Amino acid sequence: MAKDKKLVESITSMSEDFAQWYTDVVKKAELVEYSSVKGCMIIRPTGYAIWENIQKELDARFKETGVENVYMPMFIPESLLQKEKDHVEGFAPEVAWVTHGGNEKLQERLCVRPTSETLFCDFFSKIVQSHRDLPKVYNQWCSVVRWEKTTRPFLRSAEFLWQEGHTIHATAQEAIDRTEQMLNVYADFFEEVLAIPVVKGKKTDKEKFAGAEATYTIEALMHDGKALQSGTSHYFGDGFAKAFDIQFSDSNNQLQYVHETSWGVSTRMIGAIIMVHGDDSGLVLPPRIAPTQVVVIPIAQRKEGVLEKCAEVTDVLKKAGIRVKLDGSDKSPGWKFSEHEMRGVPLRVELGPKDIEANQAVIVRRDTREKIVVSLDELAVKVNEELVKMQADMLARAKAHLAENIHTATDYETFKDIVANKTGFVRTMWCGDQECELKIKEDTGATSRCMPFEQEQLSDVCPVCGKPAKAMVYWGKAY
Amino acid sequence: MAKDKKLVESITSMSEDFAQWYTDVVKKAELVEYSSVKGCMIIRPTGYAIWENIQKELDARFKETGVENVYMPMFIPESLLQKEKDHVEGFAPEVAWVTHGGNEKLQERLCVRPTSETLFCDFFSKIVQSHRDLPKVYNQWCSVVRWEKTTRPFLRSAEFLWQEGHTIHATAQEAIDRTEQMLNVYADFFEEVLAIPVVKGKKTDKEKFAGAEATYTIEALMHDGKALQSGTSHYFGDGFAKAFDIQFSDSNNQLQYVHETSWGVSTRMIGAIIMVHGDDSGLVLPPRIAPTQVVVIPIAQRKEGVLEKCAEVTDVLKKAGIRVKLDGSDKSPGWKFSEHEMRGVPLRVELGPKDIEANQAVIVRRDTREKIVVSLDELAVKVNEELVKMQADMLARAKAHLAENIHTATDYETFKDIVANKTGFVRTMWCGDQECELKIKEDTGATSRCMPFEQEQLSDVCPVCGKPAKAMVYWGKAY
Repeated sequence: MAKDKKLVESITSMSEDFAQWYTDVVKKAELVEYSSVKGCMIIRPTGYAIWENIQKELDARFKETGVENVYMPMFIPESLLQKEKDHVEGFAPEVAWVTHGGNEKLQERLCVRPTSETLFCDFFSKIVQSHRDLPKVYNQWCSVVRWEKTTRPFLRSAEFLWQEGHTIHATAQEAIDRTEQMLNVYADFFEEVLAIPVVKGKKTDKEKFAGAEATYTIEALMHDGKALQSGTSHYFGDGFAKAFDIQFSDSNNQLQYVHETSWGVSTRMIGAIIMVHGDDSGLVLPPRIAPTQVVVIPIAQRKEGVLEKCAEVTDVLKKAGIRVKLDGSDKSPGWKFSEHEMRGVPLRVELGPKDIEANQAVIVRRDTREKIVVSLDELAVKVNEELVKMQADMLARAKAHLAENIHTATDYETFKDIVANKTGFVRTMWCGDQECELKIKEDTGATSRCMPFEQEQLSDVCPVCGKPAKAMVYWGKAY
Repeated sequence: MAKDKKLVESITSMSEDFAQWYTDVVKKAELVEYSSVKGCMIIRPTGYAIWENIQKELDARFKETGVENVYMPMFIPESLLQKEKDHVEGFAPEVAWVTHGGNEKLQERLCVRPTSETLFCDFFSKIVQSHRDLPKVYNQWCSVVRWEKTTRPFLRSAEFLWQEGHTIHATAQEAIDRTEQMLNVYADFFEEVLAIPVVKGKKTDKEKFAGAEATYTIEALMHDGKALQSGTSHYFGDGFAKAFDIQFSDSNNQLQYVHETSWGVSTRMIGAIIMVHGDDSGLVLPPRIAPTQVVVIPIAQRKEGVLEKCAEVTDVLKKAGIRVKLDGSDKSPGWKFSEHEMRGVPLRVELGPKDIEANQAVIVRRDTREKIVVSLDELAVKVNEELVKMQADMLARAKAHLAENIHTATDYETFKDIVANKTGFVRTMWCGDQECELKIKEDTGATSRCMPFEQEQLSDVCPVCGKPAKAMVYWGKAY
């Protein structure tokens, strides 16, 4: 059986080197392959199928709230990018520039979109006249480019896939409501589908999006105790509207500026799935997002009738709406076990001659390794039950991990001690001063993750400067 | 009622100026908006929803044949593009070049993908070792860029959306079979879903894809009698495999080169839908692809109970699986009629106080303007029937139009006369010599569209040079 262990042994253990474990898993589970283009990844079938499931779920949730999909050009003329001052300052240093088309030099450089606020604003200014044209609630699924120096698959790459929603509204309140609504859509999706609990809150001014009045965020906690900013929703007020002259005549025939939002999540979510649920045998996929939910593995498959029975069982599961595959390849069962564990398939069904004789099969859960012997007559029902249970258990474990890793500090020494010796979030009060925020980062390496919506009054003063506290902040080291 | 006509009057009639009619329709039906980026279009919600329906249908058909989706980088390093000689010659003149990332000049220029054969080959060379790794049947949905000078929405734009399939196989025959299989998937999709009949055939060497051994094509005929190349499928032999060193060890442990295909369709299909089915009132969408299949329009909607009944009816249709919308806006019914006609909604249901009293509604078909009075009790059934009938009728009309516009010439004078005075395809025999092909283009402006799979022996000689005929060719003016 030594040979069967090869695949598992080929990845580094989490405790030994978490970063290397991550890299090993994305590669060995065949989620990505490195490309010849610096900083860009190839998303392989398993990785892309996860993304397709994410898209399908999220897109349906968006559309339920009235979102319409569109597609904008991938290029932004330099003059357009420069219209909003904060925005261009934030993005210009990390964009890719197209300077030539065919053999000719372009009159004006085009950047490959790092995000599309400027294009949407330009578009909105052309199509909005009256209050009857509002709101516009648009989204696009596309790829964007940010010229990052150090990259890691899914977490930070020069090009990545995402969705970006862009909306305009007649009033500030309606825009703020939309910003919060979409953050809640993200948070619910993370919990219900990805089995990842998140902390919802507002970013400090220092951490907000370039050009935004307010940025809301969902922050998830990875297995190594580091935070991952997993989705953001921005409220722009009428700043962009003024820069791009997006006006409408209200019901009194007065010209008004629109109020704007944008919100996005990306393939980074796949990084979160890996780092929240994975273990030393590889990926563990929540059943709701797994491209293959169940793999049927024949035992002693050359024995008469085994493969046929496995095919029959696979068919029964397929008809019950389960995403199932039969692995009838000529590898050994042990090798198949470890291969499908590596790929994170939630359940495997083992079926051999003795099982067939006893009219039973063995279900093995990927997360707990629990083995359940079930009658073939009720296999589909049991498999569905186990998938539901596993999804719930994964969320419960992730919630427990998050709860255990939220620490509280009311004085700065304790704060520093926690950041140095524990993992996860540290909650403190904060005076609202950027100086204290910078000092914390300099002293400890932790950044402000967010001011959570659920505030508590931990103490009355900022532990750094002693001035009156304005808000409770979650701090942490982050990806 | 004069005001109600405004929308229709705002578009040019087809007979007056077909090109202008097309431009008017894409704009007034709100399929696209022009962007500030030269040659790039914005695809608006109605246009994008058509694309989403196309994607959903095609993607399911692809997957049924074993296709797996992936995502490749959008950039191609110049050195990679140059590996296959014919390919780079074909594409280099029309690519956009990225030369700077952030503030730094890149060591090597990157082109924005015009197509991704080179990236897929590079990828395949990394992941294929043994015959057990074959075939790979991959596809990606993405946008590509070709630096076109003259652009038209959907038909030819600097950036467009498409899918590109790339496959590798152990044998030439398997690759050729896949090339033909995918062309058939396209042709069936065009007929069954877009209600567009196509001519299937092989391109001449002059018209084939840069780097291909053979290019297969589906050619559709637009309302103005011009051809539109609507989808292509390429067989590469082992040319790319040799350039990129994609080898596998066969079952005898001998190294072999793989055989490769690629195939694609794009947002150009939306142009085909417009130009095959549209009329002087705007767009006419085949029911199977229409984002909204039925619009319910209240008559005298301020009368008590009308809007409520319309909402009820809308709900009944929605529950029957029909994509239906209620237009309860404060515009006049006549204005709404013309607006939804412009947008190509297949059926409208009119419902006023008198209809409600008589427990009936009026169904009006977009294509024939036929009015059908039906009992409200059987509305969903009748609406479904009409949608099916309309889909079939649209295909039948397009087929009749194609059949009427296929002409035959056995001598060159007749050929020239037909191209000058008629529209559509002209069939002739051909000697296989590129000189004759060029002469026809120069003399008449017609290009070889394809050598159809269904060959006929119209005569024994090429009408241009008189040499023995090798194949029957369809010629035509094309977009």
